[in-house]
Amino acid sequence: MTRQELIAQIKAKQSFLCVGLDTDINKIPKFLLDFEDPIFEFNKRIIDATKDFCVSYKPNIAFYERHGAKGWESLAKTIAYIPQEHFIIADAKRGDIGNTASYYADAFFKDMNCDAITVAPYMGKDSVTPFLNYENKWAIVLAMTSNPGSLDFQFIQDASGKIFAEHVVEKCTTWASDEQLMFVVGATRSEDIARIRKAAPSSFFLVPGVGAQGGSLADVVEFGWNEDCGLLVNSSRAIIYASSGEDFATRATEEAQKVQQEMAVVLQNKGW
Amino acid sequence: MTRQELIAQIKAKQSFLCVGLDTDINKIPKFLLDFEDPIFEFNKRIIDATKDFCVSYKPNIAFYERHGAKGWESLAKTIAYIPQEHFIIADAKRGDIGNTASYYADAFFKDMNCDAITVAPYMGKDSVTPFLNYENKWAIVLAMTSNPGSLDFQFIQDASGKIFAEHVVEKCTTWASDEQLMFVVGATRSEDIARIRKAAPSSFFLVPGVGAQGGSLADVVEFGWNEDCGLLVNSSRAIIYASSGEDFATRATEEAQKVQQEMAVVLQNKGW
Repeated sequence: MTRQELIAQIKAKQSFLCVGLDTDINKIPKFLLDFEDPIFEFNKRIIDATKDFCVSYKPNIAFYERHGAKGWESLAKTIAYIPQEHFIIADAKRGDIGNTASYYADAFFKDMNCDAITVAPYMGKDSVTPFLNYENKWAIVLAMTSNPGSLDFQFIQDASGKIFAEHVVEKCTTWASDEQLMFVVGATRSEDIARIRKAAPSSFFLVPGVGAQGGSLADVVEFGWNEDCGLLVNSSRAIIYASSGEDFATRATEEAQKVQQEMAVVLQNKGW
Repeated sequence: MTRQELIAQIKAKQSFLCVGLDTDINKIPKFLLDFEDPIFEFNKRIIDATKDFCVSYKPNIAFYERHGAKGWESLAKTIAYIPQEHFIIADAKRGDIGNTASYYADAFFKDMNCDAITVAPYMGKDSVTPFLNYENKWAIVLAMTSNPGSLDFQFIQDASGKIFAEHVVEKCTTWASDEQLMFVVGATRSEDIARIRKAAPSSFFLVPGVGAQGGSLADVVEFGWNEDCGLLVNSSRAIIYASSGEDFATRATEEAQKVQQEMAVVLQNKGW
């Protein structure tokens, strides 16, 4: 998907919501366990329930991979089921080099038709650029994550006071344009979003941490908005596990719609 | 596998060689493509050909994952085929948090019985510690890698001159002991191995970059050796692709034995 197509979707749906498909076999409603592929059954119903309110889906690959070959099939079926107008992010946090990275790119971009893959920056340029060899496919580099451990390394300062996450963002933007590169920027330390926005003014940010993790949508917009919106805000648990009963899909619709309506107000205030 | 068992294997085999199973369907001998599972056939023969000369195998997960569910099966069969006295490293470079990391740990430690998994440090403590909840299983954290891009971020200095890779190693050693934690330390900048050795005197290092990438075994030993050996030196291409013909297994034996003999000299000189 191109940047322009993504922006058009945001306008059309009045939403910049990404629904995280962190589908945990231990958390889905029990009655689904009678189906041959419970994870796919759950995802199918979640997708049907939320597709009008989000512009993106983000399966977290660990939840599939833990089931080996069978999980990989559930993932492939899920990705094939997502309507084409959605921006599909393989949340794989891969970080490998050269050929090895290319194989991951093949797996997610060619075999499965994802639009983007999340990438860890630690190994540097040759771990990021192999994901940029596919037209209209994206690398989303971890910059400032939303977990407690993000404080361990991402905020280490150099002699000039620049934090490590800023180094990552500044360098990555020299390797690819905002047509192929996004950054993961957590919502949990909202003022710091502004630092990363300064380092990458035109890039889209994938923002986890709103909802269950405590980040606020208003703060994310205040510190992260750019003239092309520049934000994909992810919510996983608050939507897909809104209920653990047979009404899980209806409750997912309600939660997704609630977030979408908040986003519509933001977009209208911005003149979108 | 415990640290003591690993050390005992190194002594018994007079080798600290790890063979990297970076099995590329485009590089294996053509006649293997007639088998139902060419990747497993190749690995089986490589394992038979090299098992007496190495103490460890390291399948790079990307080479399997690129083939989806089928690749995952080739990987599981390969790991099940490796003799039990070998230290099996899932080179997955995972970096995810909490539950998600636990699922990766389950996949590689419980379902597949690997001994270790490589882990990317960028997300901090909660991306490393979930791999430490399994007795006698190991996390191997990327510290200083051997690729060109390692210069992009790993050598950024703080105000005191400490490089980022040193921060990673120092902090990680406060989370786990040398009985469960190793570090990836590339062979390509040998003097820098000494910096990491100083930061983690007692840890084992997994050392890529000897052989095809140009690092020297003598330098690795000079700068990385500790009193328990403390080194697993990986070689992938130079051994598994020593020949692309029908003699690939014989040639792999020769190459693995050559490295083992060099290592035996080192060990004898050290009084092992």
